[in-house]
Amino acid sequence: MSNDLPLTKEAILDAAEQVLRRYGPDKTSVVDVARALQVSHGTLYRHFASKASLREAVTERWLHKIILDPLEAIAVQSGGSATERLRTWFETLIRTKKAYAINDSEMFAMYAAVTLDAVEMINTHVNQLIDQIARIIEEGMKSQEFKSFEPIVTARAIFIATSRFHHPVHAKEWSSDTIEQEFASVWDLLLYGIS
Amino acid sequence: MSNDLPLTKEAILDAAEQVLRRYGPDKTSVVDVARALQVSHGTLYRHFASKASLREAVTERWLHKIILDPLEAIAVQSGGSATERLRTWFETLIRTKKAYAINDSEMFAMYAAVTLDAVEMINTHVNQLIDQIARIIEEGMKSQEFKSFEPIVTARAIFIATSRFHHPVHAKEWSSDTIEQEFASVWDLLLYGIS
Repeated sequence: MSNDLPLTKEAILDAAEQVLRRYGPDKTSVVDVARALQVSHGTLYRHFASKASLREAVTERWLHKIILDPLEAIAVQSGGSATERLRTWFETLIRTKKAYAINDSEMFAMYAAVTLDAVEMINTHVNQLIDQIARIIEEGMKSQEFKSFEPIVTARAIFIATSRFHHPVHAKEWSSDTIEQEFASVWDLLLYGIS
Repeated sequence: MSNDLPLTKEAILDAAEQVLRRYGPDKTSVVDVARALQVSHGTLYRHFASKASLREAVTERWLHKIILDPLEAIAVQSGGSATERLRTWFETLIRTKKAYAINDSEMFAMYAAVTLDAVEMINTHVNQLIDQIARIIEEGMKSQEFKSFEPIVTARAIFIATSRFHHPVHAKEWSSDTIEQEFASVWDLLLYGIS
């Protein structure tokens, strides 16, 4: 890319993701990303004031693309069983997190680190996920598959109660032999609760 | 202590806990503990072959004393509401973990680290906790407060579903303003499930 072209946020994040993957989050600086884009670091600093904000923005985009958008496609489906849709939503979340923890370990490690620092961005992300769950629960309340609850409160409770299976601090436990059986028994209990 | 006295396991663990608290788990060696006990490190190595096994044994004793024994006192109570006893058991677990994370941060950090390494010891500890929960659930099934379940499976599911509130990887989240409200909504959902 030449520095004659306007520097879009997408182009910066593409370059930053590449550089972060190559050197790792600890060794990547804003200057490295500016170099990859062939712009001065002054130019890049006008868009991202720090290495931390660049890392956060790359993680945010990654979470949108690999987690939020595919799950939104499940949440917006209508008709059929809300119970099945809710389970598909959670199984997709869990399967995706596990696959990335294994196959894209650099990005996953960066995400796990950002989780501890970028509290506000992660809260927004989690609230978007909980909103998707709440919409499925509302559908299930309408079809009388589920009892009547405050959808957001119940959605948050189910999300928290399944933390073991999707929160990155538990990633080491996801390769356990018993993890699927454990998910099944937690899921049965939660479904007894809402059905 | 003189090296003329027999070296009991308790005496070694007392000395090791003191030394670990003073120097921290990373800097403490078996030799430091031997010196505190005024025995040769050869003598100590006959009891504990490595720094890791000493650390594990100190953590195991600590978990027994501060977690397992007080919770056993709740589990063995009989009469009264099993629902209330189950909630008291969990609230005690959660309150104790949180208090130690704040007020005994050296031991808590060592416990959190050992959790990742001493998988077998931690599994045994967790199984002992789950057995206590299962006994309360059995009482609740007898009194018809709870529906009929396989007590151990349900106990494990409830333990896992409340991980956010007691698993040491989540310790940073325990000081959140909303954590008590989150526990209350997870708890309500789990109780709907079993009641």
